[in-house]
Amino acid sequence: MTSISIIGAGNMGTAIATIAATGGASVQLLAQDAEKTAAAAAVAGASVVSGVAGDTLTGEIVVLALPYPAVAGVLAQYAGQLDGKILVDISNPLDFATFDSLVVPADGSAAQVIAQTVPGARVLKAFNTTFAATLATGGVNGVAPTTVLVAGDDASAKEALIALLIAGGVLALDAGALKRARELEALGFLQLTLAAGSSIGWTGGFALVK
Amino acid sequence: MTSISIIGAGNMGTAIATIAATGGASVQLLAQDAEKTAAAAAVAGASVVSGVAGDTLTGEIVVLALPYPAVAGVLAQYAGQLDGKILVDISNPLDFATFDSLVVPADGSAAQVIAQTVPGARVLKAFNTTFAATLATGGVNGVAPTTVLVAGDDASAKEALIALLIAGGVLALDAGALKRARELEALGFLQLTLAAGSSIGWTGGFALVK
Repeated sequence: MTSISIIGAGNMGTAIATIAATGGASVQLLAQDAEKTAAAAAVAGASVVSGVAGDTLTGEIVVLALPYPAVAGVLAQYAGQLDGKILVDISNPLDFATFDSLVVPADGSAAQVIAQTVPGARVLKAFNTTFAATLATGGVNGVAPTTVLVAGDDASAKEALIALLIAGGVLALDAGALKRARELEALGFLQLTLAAGSSIGWTGGFALVK
Repeated sequence: MTSISIIGAGNMGTAIATIAATGGASVQLLAQDAEKTAAAAAVAGASVVSGVAGDTLTGEIVVLALPYPAVAGVLAQYAGQLDGKILVDISNPLDFATFDSLVVPADGSAAQVIAQTVPGARVLKAFNTTFAATLATGGVNGVAPTTVLVAGDDASAKEALIALLIAGGVLALDAGALKRARELEALGFLQLTLAAGSSIGWTGGFALVK
């Protein structure tokens, strides 16, 4: 059975936990506040185990369902425990004060920064181009199915995540090497600016049509 | 009446000429080969005037419907004639040998390079996120309508192009300042890699859902 630990129990973490539980995975949901995390886990599925950030990770897949500024602290907290794990970065590393630029190198990405920080982990970029509501419903405002784009350099890691998502009822697609995280983060950034400017809603966004 | 000159009579130039003619604009279509350009103009609309690259531009809007490597030569050819014009860059500046990187600065874009080259022009980025087939049909593989994303620093230039596209039957949306061309080009790049890898078809791609 696939096992997954999700750190962060906000809308994104809860939606990902729900998909993983639906897909039959063993799911651990961790966040700062034990009570809120337990409530989110109950929403995600009866089998979802909750805990607090810092608990030993039970998942072979670890999702950082966190805003980018919180990632470094969690990586430090789990130093030495992430080697060999499939480590999934979902962040959109915007400068949220201006909504006008990213805080990572222009020729790189948050995912690549994380891969440099934790060289023993099998880092994937995923989920940053899908708003939480589109993960929760499986559709982009009812017009097209939601597709999770997954980039990474470890083929079997990508396969494992994509298989779990598809088992959980959400389309998922290999978007290429980890360096494509630059483009995925640009897409996520653009989508956020359009939603923040009310050009699109938070239940919409870019739907991938085959 | 809006007037538009389109340089390049390939699939993109012909699709844009068709939309502009449908929208009631005075359309000039220019390319290297007079005979092929006349044939493309006839497809685009009975009122579309054809000519060869180098002819005096009659449009207040000038669309560079060219692959990025051809842009510099055309800008040199029209040096001094582009000041005050609304100059529309549609390019996806990929390294087409590798399909793995862009040939413009990572913190910039082809559109910004063009704006630096022709500082008197009112440069817009548009059309690079919509495959030609989706412009020609107005839909992304029948699933969602096609939306042209337009970025630029000149509000009235953006308004003019967006109004013409909507008059021509295609949705169009203000995607922000010219610096957002970085993100639009990243999106176009990603979409091209997905199509080149057969993950999506050339009639599909990213559809913007509100």
